[in-house]
Amino acid sequence: MNAEIISVGTELLMGQISNTNAQYISQKLAESGINVYFHSVVGDNRVRMLETLRLAVKRSDILILTGGLGPTEDDITKEVISELTGVPLEVDYESQLKIEEFFNKLNRPMAENNIRQALIPQGAVIIPNDKGLAPGCVVNYNSIDIVLLPGPPSEMKPMFDYFLDKHIVESGMVIESKYIRIFGLGESTVEEKISALVKKQTNPTLATYCNEGEVVLRITASSMDKNGAELLIKPVLEEIEGRLGKYIVSTDGRSMEEVVVSMLREKGKTISTAESCTGGMIGSRLTSVPGASEVYERGVVTYSNNSKVDMLGVSSNTLSKKGAVSPETAEQMARGIREISGTSIGISITGIAGPGGGSEEKPVGLVYIGFSDESGTESRRLNLFGSRDRVRHYAALTALDIVRRKLKQNN
Amino acid sequence: MNAEIISVGTELLMGQISNTNAQYISQKLAESGINVYFHSVVGDNRVRMLETLRLAVKRSDILILTGGLGPTEDDITKEVISELTGVPLEVDYESQLKIEEFFNKLNRPMAENNIRQALIPQGAVIIPNDKGLAPGCVVNYNSIDIVLLPGPPSEMKPMFDYFLDKHIVESGMVIESKYIRIFGLGESTVEEKISALVKKQTNPTLATYCNEGEVVLRITASSMDKNGAELLIKPVLEEIEGRLGKYIVSTDGRSMEEVVVSMLREKGKTISTAESCTGGMIGSRLTSVPGASEVYERGVVTYSNNSKVDMLGVSSNTLSKKGAVSPETAEQMARGIREISGTSIGISITGIAGPGGGSEEKPVGLVYIGFSDESGTESRRLNLFGSRDRVRHYAALTALDIVRRKLKQNN
Repeated sequence: MNAEIISVGTELLMGQISNTNAQYISQKLAESGINVYFHSVVGDNRVRMLETLRLAVKRSDILILTGGLGPTEDDITKEVISELTGVPLEVDYESQLKIEEFFNKLNRPMAENNIRQALIPQGAVIIPNDKGLAPGCVVNYNSIDIVLLPGPPSEMKPMFDYFLDKHIVESGMVIESKYIRIFGLGESTVEEKISALVKKQTNPTLATYCNEGEVVLRITASSMDKNGAELLIKPVLEEIEGRLGKYIVSTDGRSMEEVVVSMLREKGKTISTAESCTGGMIGSRLTSVPGASEVYERGVVTYSNNSKVDMLGVSSNTLSKKGAVSPETAEQMARGIREISGTSIGISITGIAGPGGGSEEKPVGLVYIGFSDESGTESRRLNLFGSRDRVRHYAALTALDIVRRKLKQNN
Repeated sequence: MNAEIISVGTELLMGQISNTNAQYISQKLAESGINVYFHSVVGDNRVRMLETLRLAVKRSDILILTGGLGPTEDDITKEVISELTGVPLEVDYESQLKIEEFFNKLNRPMAENNIRQALIPQGAVIIPNDKGLAPGCVVNYNSIDIVLLPGPPSEMKPMFDYFLDKHIVESGMVIESKYIRIFGLGESTVEEKISALVKKQTNPTLATYCNEGEVVLRITASSMDKNGAELLIKPVLEEIEGRLGKYIVSTDGRSMEEVVVSMLREKGKTISTAESCTGGMIGSRLTSVPGASEVYERGVVTYSNNSKVDMLGVSSNTLSKKGAVSPETAEQMARGIREISGTSIGISITGIAGPGGGSEEKPVGLVYIGFSDESGTESRRLNLFGSRDRVRHYAALTALDIVRRKLKQNN
């Protein structure tokens, strides 16, 4: 069985957005043992979309299309599928009701063309969309499954997962994957550390991915049942845990912030944050986890020097002598937020994110992270490179990783 | 003239890496007035690569291939091009010397297959590679330019730029695009409001797309020069400004936070933030803009009730009688942060992001935004739907939009 991914949208051809959908779908199909031989991107154009589809149905068993299901005149995927297959479109009443209800609730008049989103090819099987208005569907055409999914990744991803579970995973073999999230090692270092394992393995297989500062290692095994697959994964996972140890954030796919929040909860500890150059990114990450309120008490974004003095009791003397970006300031920030909030842990960041503000002594990318708990206060210096975004993102992740490692040590 | 991008590599089809090369090349070609109608991704497979190329040479004037120029047996792009065009490969001696020198310098024996990187189709024009060993080249075949570039982005990007400068920027036509960012209207409403314009226009063309809560409207014109294209765009832009008015965040592609920071700066105003359910997202957005320190003084993430009382002076009475998610609390938070920080504006968010914590009276998605400035304090109620992520994201954007609109009114 082989699949082909067709991404629809002129914005992809103009380079306005990157085709992350194709990557996501490819990963998931690879795990499920389905070969992907082609990706195509085509614009919102009837003739070229038809040409692409006519070729694809000749060479693939499953076509996954993303994009072009919205309400606007550019959104023509379903019309083109109708033309290709000769199956007319009809209104799916459940989807229509949902769209009408949505606008009623918002108290906004519904633009007429919104109903276009409820059209699907006759006889297609609906893939529900919990995050948006346009449903997806599976159209069977000459024994080929044509899967239509919306373009926005937040809608597409759960819908594709749903499709994969419902329609694909019935081939007899069960495929199980484990995702190991790693922070603090580059992809090539991770590969080097596990290269002997990679070469040896055919089942399970191993693959590494880069993911915004983290490396994700996937272990995939196939077997007759879930238990068998898990038994195949277990020794490999243990070997990897032995080799990568403290760099492993989670072995169940959980994010850094999910791990930190659940560790804090398990240990009955609380945390507060004091951020400068990251401007609220640690707080924002921690509070992205449902139930964070049990462990996250408060945070401050002390962007100005004044606010560092006022809110955290950082000494003016330290600020003038050592500067806002210094280990002393980071430590006073961490201690200060811990004291005023009465939490078990205080974590702080101060740094120079760039592009301006750097000097020879304190270049762009210099970041100090402060950590304070009942046993004392300390700081760590980072020398990061890259854009303002990268420096901030990596600094926030490192701060969370410091909390994670401290909590782990204190077992 | 139209171009097609063919990315070669099984790692793309496995989802191990994202196809950022295609996005980069597409952007550059769009800016140069060259249409891109197709992207394709194909694996390191002779038959499927040939099939993809045979189709591409029928429909495009320029093919840009990335990947498959390396030394390993998987790297077969040049062999396949040779088969397609009937032009044999020959060693480019300059490239061969460079490769040999590289290994001499490293004091490492050169594996025989490295010389494969110096092979190019006879008569092809070399594109030098300053960052790696494999040269690129341009092969002319039936008046079609086939451009071969390596896969690693750090090598590919400067080589593509070199090709574009040398070979392309002499075609005459220039394409100019304007990106209008819109907040507070759905994509379909935007489309409806400008549908008459869309139908009328062939140059410039208009297209809308969704971008995480915002709608982006693109106007693209082609002309003999930049000035001519801009003259075509101007009246259409004015018409759209008339129709969408206050919903327009920017007409130059700038993000909400960039617009807010630059408006604050122009007006000599400062801002502080008090966040609950968004946990630092407004602060994080504002400080993502270089130079935000001129206008952003501080923020607090008052996640617990205690912290709202301690840090912002929210009344315990209000919290117990009206609750943390209430217009009164939002207003006291906004007034509180403005007073303690001494900024011109204080903005606050309190709400129920879900998935837990909702009730019949105060359901998930209920959010209050407080705004305080020298003329007083007010709040706005939002009833949002969707995931925790969406509620938080949309709430933060709305808060920034409220600041933007207030600053605009006070002109």
